[in-house]
Amino acid sequence: MSPPAAVDIEVTGVTDTSSMVIPDPLTLDDVKAWRAKTKMPTGVAAMANSDMFKSPACYNKPSAKRWDHILSAEAKARKSSTLKAAAKYLKQPGMISLGGGLPSSEYFPFDHIDIKVPEPPRFSEDEMRKYGKVARAGRHDIRDGTSEYDLEIALNYGQATGSGQMLRFVTEHTEIVHNPPYSDWQCCLTPGSTASWDATLRIFCERGDYIITEEYTFSTALETAHPLGIRAAAVKMDEQGLLPESLDDVLTNWDEKARGARKPYLLYTVPSGQNPTGATQSIERRREVYKVAQKHDLYIVEDEPYYFLQMQPYTRADGPSVPAPSNHKEFLKALIPSFLSIDVDGRVLRLDSFSKVVSPGSRVAWIVASEQIVERFTRHFECSTQNPSGISQLILFKLLDEQWGHSGYLDWLINLRMQYTNRRNTIVQACEKYLPTEVASWTPPTAGMFHWIQVDWKKHPKAIAGESHDAIEEAIFNAATERNVLVSRGSWFKADSTVDEDGMFFRATFAAAPADKITEAIKRFGEALRAEFRLC
Amino acid sequence: MSPPAAVDIEVTGVTDTSSMVIPDPLTLDDVKAWRAKTKMPTGVAAMANSDMFKSPACYNKPSAKRWDHILSAEAKARKSSTLKAAAKYLKQPGMISLGGGLPSSEYFPFDHIDIKVPEPPRFSEDEMRKYGKVARAGRHDIRDGTSEYDLEIALNYGQATGSGQMLRFVTEHTEIVHNPPYSDWQCCLTPGSTASWDATLRIFCERGDYIITEEYTFSTALETAHPLGIRAAAVKMDEQGLLPESLDDVLTNWDEKARGARKPYLLYTVPSGQNPTGATQSIERRREVYKVAQKHDLYIVEDEPYYFLQMQPYTRADGPSVPAPSNHKEFLKALIPSFLSIDVDGRVLRLDSFSKVVSPGSRVAWIVASEQIVERFTRHFECSTQNPSGISQLILFKLLDEQWGHSGYLDWLINLRMQYTNRRNTIVQACEKYLPTEVASWTPPTAGMFHWIQVDWKKHPKAIAGESHDAIEEAIFNAATERNVLVSRGSWFKADSTVDEDGMFFRATFAAAPADKITEAIKRFGEALRAEFRLC
Repeated sequence: MSPPAAVDIEVTGVTDTSSMVIPDPLTLDDVKAWRAKTKMPTGVAAMANSDMFKSPACYNKPSAKRWDHILSAEAKARKSSTLKAAAKYLKQPGMISLGGGLPSSEYFPFDHIDIKVPEPPRFSEDEMRKYGKVARAGRHDIRDGTSEYDLEIALNYGQATGSGQMLRFVTEHTEIVHNPPYSDWQCCLTPGSTASWDATLRIFCERGDYIITEEYTFSTALETAHPLGIRAAAVKMDEQGLLPESLDDVLTNWDEKARGARKPYLLYTVPSGQNPTGATQSIERRREVYKVAQKHDLYIVEDEPYYFLQMQPYTRADGPSVPAPSNHKEFLKALIPSFLSIDVDGRVLRLDSFSKVVSPGSRVAWIVASEQIVERFTRHFECSTQNPSGISQLILFKLLDEQWGHSGYLDWLINLRMQYTNRRNTIVQACEKYLPTEVASWTPPTAGMFHWIQVDWKKHPKAIAGESHDAIEEAIFNAATERNVLVSRGSWFKADSTVDEDGMFFRATFAAAPADKITEAIKRFGEALRAEFRLC
Repeated sequence: MSPPAAVDIEVTGVTDTSSMVIPDPLTLDDVKAWRAKTKMPTGVAAMANSDMFKSPACYNKPSAKRWDHILSAEAKARKSSTLKAAAKYLKQPGMISLGGGLPSSEYFPFDHIDIKVPEPPRFSEDEMRKYGKVARAGRHDIRDGTSEYDLEIALNYGQATGSGQMLRFVTEHTEIVHNPPYSDWQCCLTPGSTASWDATLRIFCERGDYIITEEYTFSTALETAHPLGIRAAAVKMDEQGLLPESLDDVLTNWDEKARGARKPYLLYTVPSGQNPTGATQSIERRREVYKVAQKHDLYIVEDEPYYFLQMQPYTRADGPSVPAPSNHKEFLKALIPSFLSIDVDGRVLRLDSFSKVVSPGSRVAWIVASEQIVERFTRHFECSTQNPSGISQLILFKLLDEQWGHSGYLDWLINLRMQYTNRRNTIVQACEKYLPTEVASWTPPTAGMFHWIQVDWKKHPKAIAGESHDAIEEAIFNAATERNVLVSRGSWFKADSTVDEDGMFFRATFAAAPADKITEAIKRFGEALRAEFRLC
């Protein structure tokens, strides 16, 4: 990663967002009032889209740009489903359908599903067991008027957008948190952000294309791209992640002939708690990146699983701890605005997900983008995964919408923020105590699951003797595993394997292990470093 | 569709399967005994594959052929996930992992999930409510020794093969029902058969390729193929579906130049209760098709959502009804053997699913194929959908494995067979009563959800006056919808739009509506036909 640098980019002919005031998001009361005026489509496989649920405030804004020029041949060729189109006749009163091949709910072998979930703010395992509430999903709750969603609907086929019930929740959530500054944004549920990313590549890219990524990036994102013949052009980073001047440089100096590919038009970035570096882009940084995107007409994919794992400021072991945000408004203000929230052009595709904030096993995620793009995703999913699990959607609806509502969900997210703050403090404090600062350095992460430790490998005895970066990284990794601590090697996350690595890094996650194990693991890693660097 | 024809194909140099005795499948007791000797991997995202669960009887058989020559560039380029490969270190005793970015189960906001399900053989909605049993999934049932699967595992990330818990169930089920005649078959769970089919096309085909399909086929299957630049070559059918001599003809006379494409090497077929024709291939037909596949080295994809919707023989309203199979053995014997069960070469990919037999909303399906092919699918899903919903998998496990076991599941499938027999009898009896046989004809379906009604359109007054097939099909469709009955037009399912249609068909599903509505709908369709053909 490069050192931090003053940004100095000449940008012309683009909308300036830096002076734009991000308007206050919708309050939870506004959402409640608006919802009371809307109607939930509750039939089997009922069509729904975000426009049914967005507040009127969304429409006094300009429309998104069109992206026809960057859609793939595959995406352009997708048409509406013949059979789904026939569903329009079902609205005719008295119609008996012998049309679609949907099974009868008579043959779904479930009488009801009960879930016991925590009651805000009592979120711990013990409190959940003691004070949790039980929510029931029955077969015919819609018909019986006891719920807007039930087994009869959730267990049958659904639409590729996801059910109206969950689509409403994520649409409202998106307006509360991000409030995009253009009018025609929409959401579509997906079976996880990896599936969203796979679809993104197939919708926007052709074999042979380059995409732009951070120089260290989520290895699965690259492994999704490579078999499709899509390569990554790497942009340098500092402790705030992606460097706008490096992005501008890569694009300005793109040599089609040397690269054997047209100039990239798609940026993949993880703005908050970046995987693997843990770096988080400030709002100023995001604005600068957005300007460069405008200059080069770049489309931005912001993959944001860790957005709500933003933390309170880091405090050393001997410092006073920072209290939790005292209310929802303060919490929302404390979040760094997303690319989506400054996206005046509709050039951002946001990949959002419940995996890191509720449960990865639900395989329910969503995207936010302009109507044109969301429509192409919907067509794509109709002919692949069809819709996220209805069982997962029903259980998330019972928890997030019926039991918690947006208010309880924000309470939960504040709780997570404090939990991850504690976990981050634990690992950084352990590093301060146990790692040899002669060779190891780091920046305390402000979001996400990852701590990125830089090692000054050139001081390694074998480096002095001429051994390679790779050999030394492997030696340190092995010294750690021999001491029973597993970390990830930085080179696993290199976007462009043709570029020589100057720095050396190890990624340690503080999301999974209990606090005492994290401390013990860092202690062992410190021992491994000392042994390798002959510091003991 | 063509009239039935005597099959006369010269086939040389291939294994003859027609004299092969399909061995008795494993009994449920055999499965139970073998399971007692195996071990379930129960860790977070634990690796599993079918070899852990297949009985020793599987291994005294030849290996599958290799299919390297028909894998796509995309499929060939897929490598193992770097991060998943690092999981091998987790087996080291005492290891503390700061490796993978999996969230801690502390932050899954569910204390337990209860499901109330029917107790075999009391399967009706009323009986389920009265006599059903409640099964509970808690957070730490594995640790507590009360179950092999729990929320801690199901709510976290999983493997692309699916969980060991559900993989064991479908592997055993596959051995009980299909018992493939080669050794190295495996299963992999998928998020639905449409996703399996999308992956199949991407794993085997390149842009510009043709695949072979029945002349009328599932329109979504074609809509999945077309945006990928894959076209369909149509094979003629009779009331048993795919005609082997037509298949042989298409392949033998393939003209690469005229078609602008290499000879097809992949057949997509729905052997049982084909969508849309309702046709079911007899075992003799399947053997003939398999022989043609061997002759041309064709790879067979059998899409079998309706396999367990095979029915008892059709009886007219005044005839005696056929009783249910009296035990599991009789039931299994009554099923037409699958392509998988005669697949001596490992040239069959079976797409199997819970959608039509348990719940489409679960979005849990599976594939069966040789190890080489299943491994490529696993790599594919790792970088797209990751794994089917863990919540769905847990709920299916509780129902199918813990509550019912294979015995209760076969009871359920027998029940479904009888339910669909009744539904099929209702629609066919209504056709006998209400449709004008001067212009309408049909074969009672023996499997599936669909009744395929042929209309002698050349007798239509407008046809005599020179109007087109399409115009008359539309007129009949409109006459039906005006009378409040929705059927599907046969032309929606045409595989090759460049071929003129000789016959005219309408597809009516008997899966969804209640019996009285089915009868009323057919009565209305009869009225529409009479009005259109001026028969009243």
